[in-house]
Amino acid sequence: MPAELRTVEWTAAGVRFIDQTRLPGEFVQETTTDWQRLVHAIQRLEIRGAPAIGVAGAMAVALAARDLDGPGGLVTLEERAAVIRAARPTAVNLAWGVDRALAEARGAPAGERAAFLGMLAAALAEADVQACRDLGAQGATLLPDDVTVLTHCNAGALATVGYGTALGVLRAAREAGKQVRVFAGETRPVLQGARLTAWELLRDGFDVTLLADTMAGAALRSGTIDAVIVGADRVAANGDVANKIGTYQLAVLARENGVPFYVAAPVSSVDLATPSGDAIVIEERDPEEVTHHGGRRLAPEGVGVWNPAFDVTPARYVSAIVTERGIARPPFGPALRGLVEPASEEWI
Amino acid sequence: MPAELRTVEWTAAGVRFIDQTRLPGEFVQETTTDWQRLVHAIQRLEIRGAPAIGVAGAMAVALAARDLDGPGGLVTLEERAAVIRAARPTAVNLAWGVDRALAEARGAPAGERAAFLGMLAAALAEADVQACRDLGAQGATLLPDDVTVLTHCNAGALATVGYGTALGVLRAAREAGKQVRVFAGETRPVLQGARLTAWELLRDGFDVTLLADTMAGAALRSGTIDAVIVGADRVAANGDVANKIGTYQLAVLARENGVPFYVAAPVSSVDLATPSGDAIVIEERDPEEVTHHGGRRLAPEGVGVWNPAFDVTPARYVSAIVTERGIARPPFGPALRGLVEPASEEWI
Repeated sequence: MPAELRTVEWTAAGVRFIDQTRLPGEFVQETTTDWQRLVHAIQRLEIRGAPAIGVAGAMAVALAARDLDGPGGLVTLEERAAVIRAARPTAVNLAWGVDRALAEARGAPAGERAAFLGMLAAALAEADVQACRDLGAQGATLLPDDVTVLTHCNAGALATVGYGTALGVLRAAREAGKQVRVFAGETRPVLQGARLTAWELLRDGFDVTLLADTMAGAALRSGTIDAVIVGADRVAANGDVANKIGTYQLAVLARENGVPFYVAAPVSSVDLATPSGDAIVIEERDPEEVTHHGGRRLAPEGVGVWNPAFDVTPARYVSAIVTERGIARPPFGPALRGLVEPASEEWI
Repeated sequence: MPAELRTVEWTAAGVRFIDQTRLPGEFVQETTTDWQRLVHAIQRLEIRGAPAIGVAGAMAVALAARDLDGPGGLVTLEERAAVIRAARPTAVNLAWGVDRALAEARGAPAGERAAFLGMLAAALAEADVQACRDLGAQGATLLPDDVTVLTHCNAGALATVGYGTALGVLRAAREAGKQVRVFAGETRPVLQGARLTAWELLRDGFDVTLLADTMAGAALRSGTIDAVIVGADRVAANGDVANKIGTYQLAVLARENGVPFYVAAPVSSVDLATPSGDAIVIEERDPEEVTHHGGRRLAPEGVGVWNPAFDVTPARYVSAIVTERGIARPPFGPALRGLVEPASEEWI
């Protein structure tokens, strides 16, 4: 078994991260002490996945604080934090990570702000891996002993600091002795399924079958798939789930074919301040993600493009939401509140 | 308005066809007198689309007959016809075109077999365009005066000899004075929507928006789409529809969102000998269609691939089937029989 992946790490030399745009062809890590470089990496999807960008956001604040230990530094840090928070709009985790770091900055002793934020960054990274392991152990109980799972996008080690949410459930199921086969949707336009999920699961020795996004319905109808499991960029208070574009249609097709549809997300992705999916801002990205691949134009000049990065799956299609603190079942409103609220006191 | 496209033509110099694998980057036509070259063109998707490969199949038989006018030639021609018929398995039109040509060959006067087959090939091509125009006029009546339509794959001029089936309906609607906007699903893995549908509709001045296959559900849920219209590779006697992979999921998502789902297909695609979709052979194609693009590997080495080229949409999701002879509505069994059977006498 290869060493466990760490998507972002707080090291003595700066923040080390994997450039996911170069996978699966090349495995490249970069180390930076420049907070703006981290913002750029989040925007370019070098670092992506809601939990990963949450921790990366906190790390960016920690880097941004390094030259701001003096009096008045907090005001500038808050300005920089606003830039970091705006790097991507949909995942609640980014704002969560930035706000968590700002709270630490406000409470830190004079002259020690940067040091405290560095410790926080390292602790958040460790806590993220532990949350994924706990979430995985919870979710593994939902799967039968011999199971074929369909997943979408990448909710894996590469979408978190390590281990993964949806793919963490599969890792935990295998660690518990279950037989797990995975169908991975390629997830156009950015192909996170083909490039990232297939790569990280093969690296761990899983049996992985890749399929184009057009094939998910036929796979579900065929009876091959026992469960669908995906991650989330934001879970609203009522259980509506914003996740990678294409999630909604998988949920409809799963229900139509009697296949359970599970969402795996840490409580940091649950946003009780968002009442329903209607209130979630959906990021639209560059049309070239759809019209080009590898610098090569696929579609004719002059065509219009619609390129939403996420969609909203209404709670009624969701069988269960798996968190590190337990599994929420419908009705999700009270179930999610019960899982999230006890923690608002708990400050890691 | 540019000259009308002709996907395959019977000319004095041989069969002229558009190499669709090179669109939209390059518009290349090739003329061949080699029947085996046509078989290869069908297998490589240089010529694709059920009606187009039906006519191309008949043209291949006509080319194959050129050195077989003598006695005993018919036996060899039937052997060659079996090779042509096997080029692709799912569309019923290919077998239909080949069998139509063989019947002509059997009935032709001694020494004039090749000449008769050449005349048949030209007539079938003209009849295909006329059938598309008639089909288009029927289908246009289903659309409101201002309409946004979602389509999948390419059921256009490029999938027929000219004018198209699903896209023929859109052309006819526009000719009837309707405002038509088109959302085109890119249609992985071969990207017929991005490459071909977008190209041929832009060429005709349509307003076309391209979207990845992951986005169709969100588009349908958004209320933007008034109707879905697709072609068919084979329609079974009960109304089950085999069409490009991804069609089934569009049909489910259309019904879930109260959007009508229309299938446009000439009667040559209706196979009363196939009782239901369960009896339709689904072609599985080369895994490299999924793992590579433009010669570049997208997915990691070692990943499994599932690459069915078609799926079956059960009749219960289909709102209407539009043919050149009229519109079939549920229950499709009697409706389709009523449209197809009067014609079994009619021998163009």
